Amino acid sequence: MLEDFSAYNPIVPPIKKYLFAPGPTPVPPEVALEMARPIIHHRTPEFSAVLDQTRQKLRPLMGTEQEVLLLASSGTGAMEAAVANLLAPGEAAIYVDGGKFGERWGRILSAFGVTPHRVPVTWGNAVTPEQVEDALRRHPDARAVLMQASETSTAAVHPVEQIAAITRRRDVLLVVDGITSVGVFEQKMDAWGIDALVTGSQKALMLPPGLGIIALSPRAWARTRKPHLPGFYFDLNRELKAQRDDHTTAYTPAISLIFGLNRSLDLIHAETLPAVFARHRLMARAARAAAAALGMNLLAAENPAPGVTGILVPERIDGSRLVRYMRDVIGVTVQGGQDQMKGKLVRIGHMGYVAPLDVLVAVGALELALRREGYDFHSGAGVAAAQAEIAAGA
Amino acid sequence: MLEDFSAYNPIVPPIKKYLFAPGPTPVPPEVALEMARPIIHHRTPEFSAVLDQTRQKLRPLMGTEQEVLLLASSGTGAMEAAVANLLAPGEAAIYVDGGKFGERWGRILSAFGVTPHRVPVTWGNAVTPEQVEDALRRHPDARAVLMQASETSTAAVHPVEQIAAITRRRDVLLVVDGITSVGVFEQKMDAWGIDALVTGSQKALMLPPGLGIIALSPRAWARTRKPHLPGFYFDLNRELKAQRDDHTTAYTPAISLIFGLNRSLDLIHAETLPAVFARHRLMARAARAAAAALGMNLLAAENPAPGVTGILVPERIDGSRLVRYMRDVIGVTVQGGQDQMKGKLVRIGHMGYVAPLDVLVAVGALELALRREGYDFHSGAGVAAAQAEIAAGA
Repeated sequence: MLEDFSAYNPIVPPIKKYLFAPGPTPVPPEVALEMARPIIHHRTPEFSAVLDQTRQKLRPLMGTEQEVLLLASSGTGAMEAAVANLLAPGEAAIYVDGGKFGERWGRILSAFGVTPHRVPVTWGNAVTPEQVEDALRRHPDARAVLMQASETSTAAVHPVEQIAAITRRRDVLLVVDGITSVGVFEQKMDAWGIDALVTGSQKALMLPPGLGIIALSPRAWARTRKPHLPGFYFDLNRELKAQRDDHTTAYTPAISLIFGLNRSLDLIHAETLPAVFARHRLMARAARAAAAALGMNLLAAENPAPGVTGILVPERIDGSRLVRYMRDVIGVTVQGGQDQMKGKLVRIGHMGYVAPLDVLVAVGALELALRREGYDFHSGAGVAAAQAEIAAGA
Repeated sequence: MLEDFSAYNPIVPPIKKYLFAPGPTPVPPEVALEMARPIIHHRTPEFSAVLDQTRQKLRPLMGTEQEVLLLASSGTGAMEAAVANLLAPGEAAIYVDGGKFGERWGRILSAFGVTPHRVPVTWGNAVTPEQVEDALRRHPDARAVLMQASETSTAAVHPVEQIAAITRRRDVLLVVDGITSVGVFEQKMDAWGIDALVTGSQKALMLPPGLGIIALSPRAWARTRKPHLPGFYFDLNRELKAQRDDHTTAYTPAISLIFGLNRSLDLIHAETLPAVFARHRLMARAARAAAAALGMNLLAAENPAPGVTGILVPERIDGSRLVRYMRDVIGVTVQGGQDQMKGKLVRIGHMGYVAPLDVLVAVGALELALRREGYDFHSGAGVAAAQAEIAAGA
């Protein structure tokens, strides 16, 4: 299955592997050990205590005093939960399609028979408040706006606060995919007026995948009490009752992941959220400085994400091959582009259990791979630029 | 939160805890360590190899040559996947309601707007083939029969093979919840004619919860190609394409659990399936012998399950209190009854990473708790009877 790169391997075979994907991200050893604890039953006071603590510790990351609910699913499951519980058959909704995950909102809406009104955004750009206002004017029947805080496929951020300023004045819910933003940069769900904020375990929360996370605003909760879309597994009112009142989950929870989350949230709060956010900003600045020093452009030059940096691959270089070489020969996993950006983009994730100096490893591997492809640059220019940013500090 | 039992604690506070729930079940140390391995990305040859192996190794446990698909969900999610992909809006289905999980089939059907025709079965009894044939006569519009192989809430088994002999002759799908049967006793999905077999990770597969597992027969796959119920996350055709053709999952998988499953299936196949099944039968015999020696009756006396033994609590004893005492004072977790059996039943799980001699611990704890409640019996009668069964061997 592996391509044969052996003829031009510039370094020894990788004895050590590094993960710089924009999810899943590395799991801290303390968290891995916590998840290896003997399993306990989920209808016990011991589990209830862990569940309560975990849900409480998530609140500051999401900027909410509302109930945070845990689901045994990937982030996509939590996205589905938002749609299935907040929209009714035959209703319409507006979604921001600026990448693969924006497109996914549209696919979920269609799967449930909700009329999807698409706001197209060129990959790498941010949606503008004017685009959303215009869509709301053209589609006064829309009951919700669905968007990403950070579009992982393009490494771009969207202006959630400004969009929330529009939706909160109307009877329109704002549903935000915060999968690569919660725990990466500030999300003020309550203060801004986000109505549903969704995330997953495998990004800034430093866990393996398998936990979906969602919080709803009071007006979103009110909406769930109307008849909603069919479904049983993702029933947020049932989960609310179970998790808030009975201190357990409606169905068997992903117990070991919840143990791990309780521990990883302790790590996050020990570092403090402002420091966590500053660390992500610094890593993003270092990665961007490296790209510039290597003469490479960003896909999202105007609105780059703090958790992942999307660097355009120079023409005549096959980005997919570059990424495979980094992974299989050097041992450094980054991600290429998806769909329309396949072969044209390198995405370096710097989220979660990643320290600023780790960015040097990712950039060093990128330099080795670019050299292998015959790209012309000064060896070390990228890592030096990243180092200068790190030295300048947060 | 804990009740104060300290005044009459007959033994030292528990320094060691034992899990005899009918799920979740104990995780072998080898599996816990495997799950603590550094996380890898799910779009890599390394992950694809693990996914392929795991899906292959599951086939003998389910008795199928069909594709086995993994979902990031609890077992309930896999039950929902079966309903959402095999039934169309407005169709009807028959479900066997002999306990809490049978009832759940009805709730899932209703949640999706499928007309549920209930076959009521007294808790602890097995459904009879005649009951199902009668229901099919009365409801010729039914497109499927949904049932449990082993009803965890009553510790009873249902005659899946005989029901399959009925449904396979008709254009009626047989959908089986095998959550406490797959890996516990033989399931011959292909040979018997089961159309959808569902299970979860936290029972005989010796893993934490968080993985749903499902396989479909060819005629069930044909049914999925018709318009089906709304939903996006549990789209089995999308998962089939992803897992069979692309060697990955449609959405982010529960990577660490899949690593663990690959390892736990190695343990199962090293023991060999006939030995695994014999071990479960032996443990069940030992638990039943203990109950009889203690003068206690089984809820499912005629058709007891091999993976869990449901023992009726003597009148005048509060079963909930008994179970709490075993858990909080002695350190041995078993489960009480649910819903109509609350306070009246003790369920001892002996599934997965449990060896026959472990049954002595569960029975010993039950004896201590019964004594505490003033129940009259000869101390040691239960463990001696269990020991005699174990000595007689598989």
